[in-house]
Amino acid sequence: MLKVPDHQVAGHRACDEMIGPLVDDSGHFYKPLQNDERGSAEVAFYTSFSSNNNIPNHIGRFFPLFHGTQLIEASDGSGLHPHLVLQDVVSSYVNPSIMDVKIGSRTWYPEASEEYIHKCFKKDRESTSLALGFMISGLQVHGSEESGFWKPDKKLIKNFTSKDVRLVLRKFVSSNTSADSGMDPDCSFASTVYGGSAGILAQLLELKEWFEDQTIFHFCSCSVLMIYDKDSVSKGRSSGAEVKLVDFTHVVEGKGIIDHNFLGGLCSLIKFISEI
Amino acid sequence: MLKVPDHQVAGHRACDEMIGPLVDDSGHFYKPLQNDERGSAEVAFYTSFSSNNNIPNHIGRFFPLFHGTQLIEASDGSGLHPHLVLQDVVSSYVNPSIMDVKIGSRTWYPEASEEYIHKCFKKDRESTSLALGFMISGLQVHGSEESGFWKPDKKLIKNFTSKDVRLVLRKFVSSNTSADSGMDPDCSFASTVYGGSAGILAQLLELKEWFEDQTIFHFCSCSVLMIYDKDSVSKGRSSGAEVKLVDFTHVVEGKGIIDHNFLGGLCSLIKFISEI
Repeated sequence: MLKVPDHQVAGHRACDEMIGPLVDDSGHFYKPLQNDERGSAEVAFYTSFSSNNNIPNHIGRFFPLFHGTQLIEASDGSGLHPHLVLQDVVSSYVNPSIMDVKIGSRTWYPEASEEYIHKCFKKDRESTSLALGFMISGLQVHGSEESGFWKPDKKLIKNFTSKDVRLVLRKFVSSNTSADSGMDPDCSFASTVYGGSAGILAQLLELKEWFEDQTIFHFCSCSVLMIYDKDSVSKGRSSGAEVKLVDFTHVVEGKGIIDHNFLGGLCSLIKFISEI
Repeated sequence: MLKVPDHQVAGHRACDEMIGPLVDDSGHFYKPLQNDERGSAEVAFYTSFSSNNNIPNHIGRFFPLFHGTQLIEASDGSGLHPHLVLQDVVSSYVNPSIMDVKIGSRTWYPEASEEYIHKCFKKDRESTSLALGFMISGLQVHGSEESGFWKPDKKLIKNFTSKDVRLVLRKFVSSNTSADSGMDPDCSFASTVYGGSAGILAQLLELKEWFEDQTIFHFCSCSVLMIYDKDSVSKGRSSGAEVKLVDFTHVVEGKGIIDHNFLGGLCSLIKFISEI
C-alpha cells in the first residue's frame, strides 16, 4: 500500500492537486520524476553513482539506496507516472526529528541558463546560503506524545537569518523545544546527537574528508538530512543519528575539480554544530 | 633609496604615469594607499590583524609584517602620498620564482554595491575563479642566468583556462620551463618545493586548518603568494619555499562565520598541487 510520507520536511508534498512522493510498508520511497531535464538528471546521477566503483563503502552509506525506476499510480490520481524507487531513509524511525540543510553558498552551476542563474543568485542572497554557505530548508523536531512535532511553516523557515539558524541548530537537540517559546534551548541531547563517535559531527567530518578529495561530482543545490530519534535518546538508548545526502537533480560532472562550493558550506555547517 | 620592485607579478605597477609600490634596501615594501575606501580598509585590516591576540604565531608568519603608514614621495613624481609600510616578502631572494593566486570562487562580498558585485560576478565567470575556486593573477619563473625569467603577459594570464592552470602549476616547479615551449614540464622540483615538511603544500594545509576555525575575517579577493628559489634547489640547498597572503583591500568582518569562500578555494588549490 502506497501512502503520503509522514515525515517529509522539504520539497514538493503530495496533496490533492500536486504530485508528490509516496512510501510503502517495506521501506521504499517513490519520488515522482520531474518531467523536465531534472527528472532524467536525477536518474542519471543515481545510476552513475550506484555503479561507480570509486565510491568508498563508508561514503555510499550517506546516500539513499537506489532501486531503479518504476511506473506507479501518481499521488494526484493523474494515472501512471515514472518514479525513482529509493530507500525511505526515515522508515525505521517512529518519531524522527529531521533537519534538511541545503549546502553551498551558490545553488546554481556555471553551465545553467542565464535565467536560472539569476533566479538562484537572487534566492541565495535572500536566504542564508550566501552568508553561511548553507540554508535550512525544512525541519521537524519531536516534542512529546502530547505535543507532537514542532514543524515550523515553510515561509518562516525561508526567512531564517543567521541568528535564527544558530538558534534552530540548538533547538534541534534540546528537550524544551516543543513549546516554541522564548525559552533558551537546553541542548541536552547535543553530546549524544551531534557528538560522539557515531554522532552527526563525526559523520559530517567523514563526508568532508571525501569532499576534499573527490572530483567526480559537483552537488549543486543538494541537501544534507540530519535525522535522529529523540525518544530513544531520552530513554538512554542510541540516538540513531544519521546523515543522508538527498536531492540530486542538479548534480554535474566534477571534471577533475573538487566541489569547493559544497565543501566550503559543509565546513561552515560543521563549525556551527561544533560550537554547540 | 626607494626603487620600483624587481619582482612584482600582479597588481598596479609603478611607471611614469602610474603610482605603484616601491621598495628600499632594508626589506620594506611601500604600497601607496588607494584614495578611495580601499586604502583605509587595508590600513584598518593590518592594524586590526597585527594587534589581534587571537592570531596564532604560526599563522601570523603567513602575513607580511606591518610597520604602519608613512608619507613618501610617490613613484609617479606627484609628490608626497601616504603608503603602507610592509615587509618586502621577496627581499631575501636573488631570483625568486613567484606565483600570485587569487583565492575564492567569488571575489565580491555581500555588503558591496550592486555595481561592484556585478562587475566581479562577470569577472569571476570569465576567469577560472568560479570553476576552480581560484585564479592565477601573476607569475614569474626563473629559468637560468642566460634565459632569465619566464613571466607571461597579463593578458595571457587573464585568459588561463582550467587546463592552463593545471599546466602552469607544473611548469612552476620544473627545470625546463624557460623556453616556454610545448615541452612537457618535468616537475623536477615538485617534491622539494611543493612537498616535504617545509614545502608549500604543508604550509597551505596549515593555513587551511586555521580557516576551518577562524571566524574573525573574510578575505575577499585576497591572494596567496607562493615563492621559492630555484637556484637554491638546483644546488641541493633548501628551496626557501614560502606562502604569504597579500592584498587586503576587501577584507570584511567574519561575524562568527568561517570564510567558506576562501576555504573552498584553498582546498581546491591544495588538491591541484597535491596531484602534481
